Amino acid sequence: MAGNSIGKEFVVTSFGESHGKYVGVVIDGCPAGVPFSEKDVQPELDRRIPPQPQIVSGRIEKDKVEILSGVFNGFTTGAPIAMIVANKEADSSDYDAIKDLPRPGHADYPARVKYGGFNDYRGGGRFSGRVTVALIMAGAVAKKLLSASNVDALAYTKAVGNVKLDKTLSHAEIRKRRYTTSVRCPDLACAEAMEEAIVKAKKEGDSLGGVIECIGLGVPAGVGEPLFDALDADLAKILLLVPAVKGVEFGAGFASAELKGSEDNDAYQMKSGKVVALTNNAGGVLGGLSSGMPIVVRVAIKPTSSIAKEQRTVNLSKMEDAEIKVGGRHDPCVVPKAVPVVEAAVAITLADHMIRAGVIPKVLKERK
Amino acid sequence: MAGNSIGKEFVVTSFGESHGKYVGVVIDGCPAGVPFSEKDVQPELDRRIPPQPQIVSGRIEKDKVEILSGVFNGFTTGAPIAMIVANKEADSSDYDAIKDLPRPGHADYPARVKYGGFNDYRGGGRFSGRVTVALIMAGAVAKKLLSASNVDALAYTKAVGNVKLDKTLSHAEIRKRRYTTSVRCPDLACAEAMEEAIVKAKKEGDSLGGVIECIGLGVPAGVGEPLFDALDADLAKILLLVPAVKGVEFGAGFASAELKGSEDNDAYQMKSGKVVALTNNAGGVLGGLSSGMPIVVRVAIKPTSSIAKEQRTVNLSKMEDAEIKVGGRHDPCVVPKAVPVVEAAVAITLADHMIRAGVIPKVLKERK
Amino acid sequence: MAGNSIGKEFVVTSFGESHGKYVGVVIDGCPAGVPFSEKDVQPELDRRIPPQPQIVSGRIEKDKVEILSGVFNGFTTGAPIAMIVANKEADSSDYDAIKDLPRPGHADYPARVKYGGFNDYRGGGRFSGRVTVALIMAGAVAKKLLSASNVDALAYTKAVGNVKLDKTLSHAEIRKRRYTTSVRCPDLACAEAMEEAIVKAKKEGDSLGGVIECIGLGVPAGVGEPLFDALDADLAKILLLVPAVKGVEFGAGFASAELKGSEDNDAYQMKSGKVVALTNNAGGVLGGLSSGMPIVVRVAIKPTSSIAKEQRTVNLSKMEDAEIKVGGRHDPCVVPKAVPVVEAAVAITLADHMIRAGVIPKVLKERK
Amino acid sequence: MAGNSIGKEFVVTSFGESHGKYVGVVIDGCPAGVPFSEKDVQPELDRRIPPQPQIVSGRIEKDKVEILSGVFNGFTTGAPIAMIVANKEADSSDYDAIKDLPRPGHADYPARVKYGGFNDYRGGGRFSGRVTVALIMAGAVAKKLLSASNVDALAYTKAVGNVKLDKTLSHAEIRKRRYTTSVRCPDLACAEAMEEAIVKAKKEGDSLGGVIECIGLGVPAGVGEPLFDALDADLAKILLLVPAVKGVEFGAGFASAELKGSEDNDAYQMKSGKVVALTNNAGGVLGGLSSGMPIVVRVAIKPTSSIAKEQRTVNLSKMEDAEIKVGGRHDPCVVPKAVPVVEAAVAITLADHMIRAGVIPKVLKERK
Repeated sequence: MAGNSIGKEFVVTSFGESHGKYVGVVIDGCPAGVPFSEKDVQPELDRRIPPQPQIVSGRIEKDKVEILSGVFNGFTTGAPIAMIVANKEADSSDYDAIKDLPRPGHADYPARVKYGGFNDYRGGGRFSGRVTVALIMAGAVAKKLLSASNVDALAYTKAVGNVKLDKTLSHAEIRKRRYTTSVRCPDLACAEAMEEAIVKAKKEGDSLGGVIECIGLGVPAGVGEPLFDALDADLAKILLLVPAVKGVEFGAGFASAELKGSEDNDAYQMKSGKVVALTNNAGGVLGGLSSGMPIVVRVAIKPTSSIAKEQRTVNLSKMEDAEIKVGGRHDPCVVPKAVPVVEAAVAITLADHMIRAGVIPKVLKERK
Repeated sequence: MAGNSIGKEFVVTSFGESHGKYVGVVIDGCPAGVPFSEKDVQPELDRRIPPQPQIVSGRIEKDKVEILSGVFNGFTTGAPIAMIVANKEADSSDYDAIKDLPRPGHADYPARVKYGGFNDYRGGGRFSGRVTVALIMAGAVAKKLLSASNVDALAYTKAVGNVKLDKTLSHAEIRKRRYTTSVRCPDLACAEAMEEAIVKAKKEGDSLGGVIECIGLGVPAGVGEPLFDALDADLAKILLLVPAVKGVEFGAGFASAELKGSEDNDAYQMKSGKVVALTNNAGGVLGGLSSGMPIVVRVAIKPTSSIAKEQRTVNLSKMEDAEIKVGGRHDPCVVPKAVPVVEAAVAITLADHMIRAGVIPKVLKERK
Repeated sequence: MAGNSIGKEFVVTSFGESHGKYVGVVIDGCPAGVPFSEKDVQPELDRRIPPQPQIVSGRIEKDKVEILSGVFNGFTTGAPIAMIVANKEADSSDYDAIKDLPRPGHADYPARVKYGGFNDYRGGGRFSGRVTVALIMAGAVAKKLLSASNVDALAYTKAVGNVKLDKTLSHAEIRKRRYTTSVRCPDLACAEAMEEAIVKAKKEGDSLGGVIECIGLGVPAGVGEPLFDALDADLAKILLLVPAVKGVEFGAGFASAELKGSEDNDAYQMKSGKVVALTNNAGGVLGGLSSGMPIVVRVAIKPTSSIAKEQRTVNLSKMEDAEIKVGGRHDPCVVPKAVPVVEAAVAITLADHMIRAGVIPKVLKERK
Repeated sequence: MAGNSIGKEFVVTSFGESHGKYVGVVIDGCPAGVPFSEKDVQPELDRRIPPQPQIVSGRIEKDKVEILSGVFNGFTTGAPIAMIVANKEADSSDYDAIKDLPRPGHADYPARVKYGGFNDYRGGGRFSGRVTVALIMAGAVAKKLLSASNVDALAYTKAVGNVKLDKTLSHAEIRKRRYTTSVRCPDLACAEAMEEAIVKAKKEGDSLGGVIECIGLGVPAGVGEPLFDALDADLAKILLLVPAVKGVEFGAGFASAELKGSEDNDAYQMKSGKVVALTNNAGGVLGGLSSGMPIVVRVAIKPTSSIAKEQRTVNLSKMEDAEIKVGGRHDPCVVPKAVPVVEAAVAITLADHMIRAGVIPKVLKERK
């Protein structure tokens, strides 16, 4: 059984390859009555292109979304929403030379084994970061849907290489500033240091990774489907699908392994008639259910695998050792591009689970 | 849509509560022809009870498995395999007193909200670590199935609180010794220090967390179903379902965020006619597909939420502040009990994906 | 991918074999707060045993249900409901002799091919009518859930062999009398003729089939999930799963193929402020959605495959022609036993779809 | 949970509306290595337009397929295959007038209720026969895949109104002639009578239904996933999804209800070293598994709901009685157009189940 769909109520099916004609998505299960048009998607796509071009690859794709179905008179209809973006900028010539030379850190080698050599290898094909466009498009629908319930997902860059944002910023600051810097870090001084680190790595023909945090706001308590479709488990799953992610943690995360129970537990108290927690080491999830506190999740992004430096590899036709210098246009650090993707991924899963929990209805409200 | 099943080919459905009559599991999709009986399950269940009783809770459950269906003449038949374990030791009296007082760190509060007060709250009910017995039973089937393909999953304790195993042990050492120590750490000196730390925390009425690593051996390249049922994503999901897990990472994991691409990439070379990687920072997964290298995953376990110390909470009937001392019998550190659960979880997902990839057939071999 | 679960919101997983230890079921996704106990299941199980024993097999099983999980303090909890019935009466000795001789009309031959000879062949194993007990148990939950929404499913025998009920009876008459006759036909005169036909066939060492109709009452308009999980399509699917069913039709069904559009269309009119249809040739389903009219579905049941007469078959070990006389205890007509199964099947699918449509909530009402 | 995907291994997701921009499909799970291009789809789409135009609607759509993804160098890659057809001929003006007047026999009324008035009602929107184009496209992939295993699905018209084909034709005759007549009946004399009946109904402003039979050839024994994803149950489900289908039956079908067991059972014998059945009343399916005999299924098609005659309906805005004459261009009998759709539907389900059974591998053969 193949696996190009995700979600159980808000079901996202992805298609398209890096150097094919289109990248696209079908969303099945979006409630009827959500105001929606191409204008809700375009700004999200644009966020994949950071304003300061020297830190991204030469491939600047002015992606333009086209909605194929599921929207009528400015509202979602309850029918599947299909959207595509054309791959205008695809230049496949770089890849023919390296067809038989799997790039270290990429899926080239296992993909060739899996598909018996029939996979579209150009630019990584189905495994390219390019296909995250599908998540962005689906995320745009999810965000519009969540906004009707005052739920929001805020992702931002927490670290690039060893440059780390240690300050705690307010949700308002993060919301306001995260997309104003090229690296998608809401702290301007820190953002500058991150940019410098990226530029330096690029000059060295090398690359950097980093850490992205995402905060889910407004999710009521009790969202998540135990035992196996726990909210944190489903968030972890979709976040591991963001290319280059190698780890995910909630709240105190790996640090909680060194805490004592009396330090880690989030005590409750009443506040204005509502149950709140005094701390949020749990990251807003208890036993796989949302606790009503902000959902806090972080992902580790590995350094970009495509680097200019020469690397050892093998020739899969000749079955002998070889060397490779990965040409093409590549980002020295994918963290900035990954920020809106992480945000979209979290929004998709929150939308899916809020429908599952019955918190979001099947028709937002009757048409007048 | 509820979520008590996991897997797409090797589908595990869990049922039962901590203080109900039984905990059980149904496995649908196990190939026919796997030699299997209760004797394959019992040792796995016994591993949940570490040999040194002072580091675990007073509730020693001599769980005895009963196979209800799906096995005939010593082999799996291809029909669903149902198994149950009776909850002999359940003592519910401790829980009535705290029915309205959600325990910090547990799912009590969001579960009450989600189920409108109808959930079985005794001992955490459906959210208790007790129900991991279902994963153990399903894992026993998965392990037997994987062993026919020479695939193995080895979990062991890597850290308890701030006592860490820094040595690298061979797979043979891990396999041989991990279940010989109470803390399930294959290094005897380190295990002793971990035990001491747990005993100390217990005396203080407090608890500890830790880190478990699991290594998947023998998985061929190309297992995993892109884009959304990536092997690492599905492993991350099932591991987040193990109670108390707050983070998961593969290979270099969060450390990779600070590496450069030239350091992190695993270069290839030919070795005895096979493609191998010189390092394994990827943890055996590239683009969501197994790379043919060992799969290496680590989880962070938070300290046990149930502690003897008094904690702040709220009374949900009176909607006012309250205090709670969690009685009952609790483990000062769940890491040792979680080791076989992590191993079972990894085995379940590997079995599921190896069937999905077509690597394991629907009938192991024709009956003679 | 195996297929022992059905439904998307009200998910029924079946396990057990005819001559194994138990037949059982797990229901995942039943809303919390449904009053439920063994007392709601037992009468449904008893309906499988018609009061007049000469028309059924010698195997009279006084099935006694045991609920293993998911019910607490007299209400469903939202957790999976597992139930089992022990196979007390199983007598396997009859089957050893015919292990290699596939019985015509049964699944013996293709099952042996599919499972490489590992399937439990005793009494048909997984393919026995015995496992419909699982549907009955799940149907009991579905019926209790539907009754809270005033939805009801009424199945009854419409024909046995060529004895047909041509009268149209009121829903009240059907509800009141269908289980008062051995053949489950609510018309007493017709029932008597059906019984005679069955007794006659039995004496001849032969068997009969028939037709069962089921009427779903109270389903509001708009239930069904287009395009592919249409309400009629999902009903057709589950009804084809009832053993011996070879056809299914809605409303005018096959007869509609000979009508003109002007005869077949159900015109609308207003009645007491509500939209109603003047006729119901559609059988309550339009475009896969419930129309608000009664859902009317009929199934064709083939004559029992197990007959005392000698039949031609093959010996699968020797791969040569052979003859078989099917021993054991068999019903000369399975229609009476199938009536409660059809009713359960329809109830399961209606429950599933009413939850899917958002008509039935995830918690029936908050616990007081 | 919405329902616009079908299949478990060969998963078909449909999108698009009658008067939207496109009708499309995504197929996930097609094995890699199937030779495939637009040329394999176009002839199947063309078959929706019978050569004799007077028996079809005025809307002649020269549908042209575009493959968006999943095909590379002339072969399927294992990635999702997306295809679209533009709705060039859509003329929405006819429908505005009847927005509030549900057409008898159509889904207009329940769809409006279900989607709170947000559904695209033009031409029936998502419920139009137009969207069967998605099934045709997916069926073209399935057929190409099946042909590599020498499996074939042959649908043809068996009856139009009360003109019935009573002759038994050979599979070769059906294969050769079914698409040579406008009504898709392989018997030329019978086809002529059917055409006349349709022309007559059209003149009267009325419409006809009919019966289509489909024969699946070459399916080996043991395909189907008990208990709940039985081969016949899944075929019944997908066939009920073909617009206007009101009944489905296998082999002897409803007629088997009147047979005796000794007449209905298909006895076995050895023939050239293989197990064969002497008759095929089972229609090639036993206990939900293919028996190795041809799969024979028939569907009842109701007369076209859109007729020129005036009909009673209601005005849903004013909630009062009304009358309607359905304008637009409509087929007086949809049977001819439905024949390739039935064939596609059967091919899709056979492909899905043959992959599920492990009979068709994940990569057809390694790329040279």
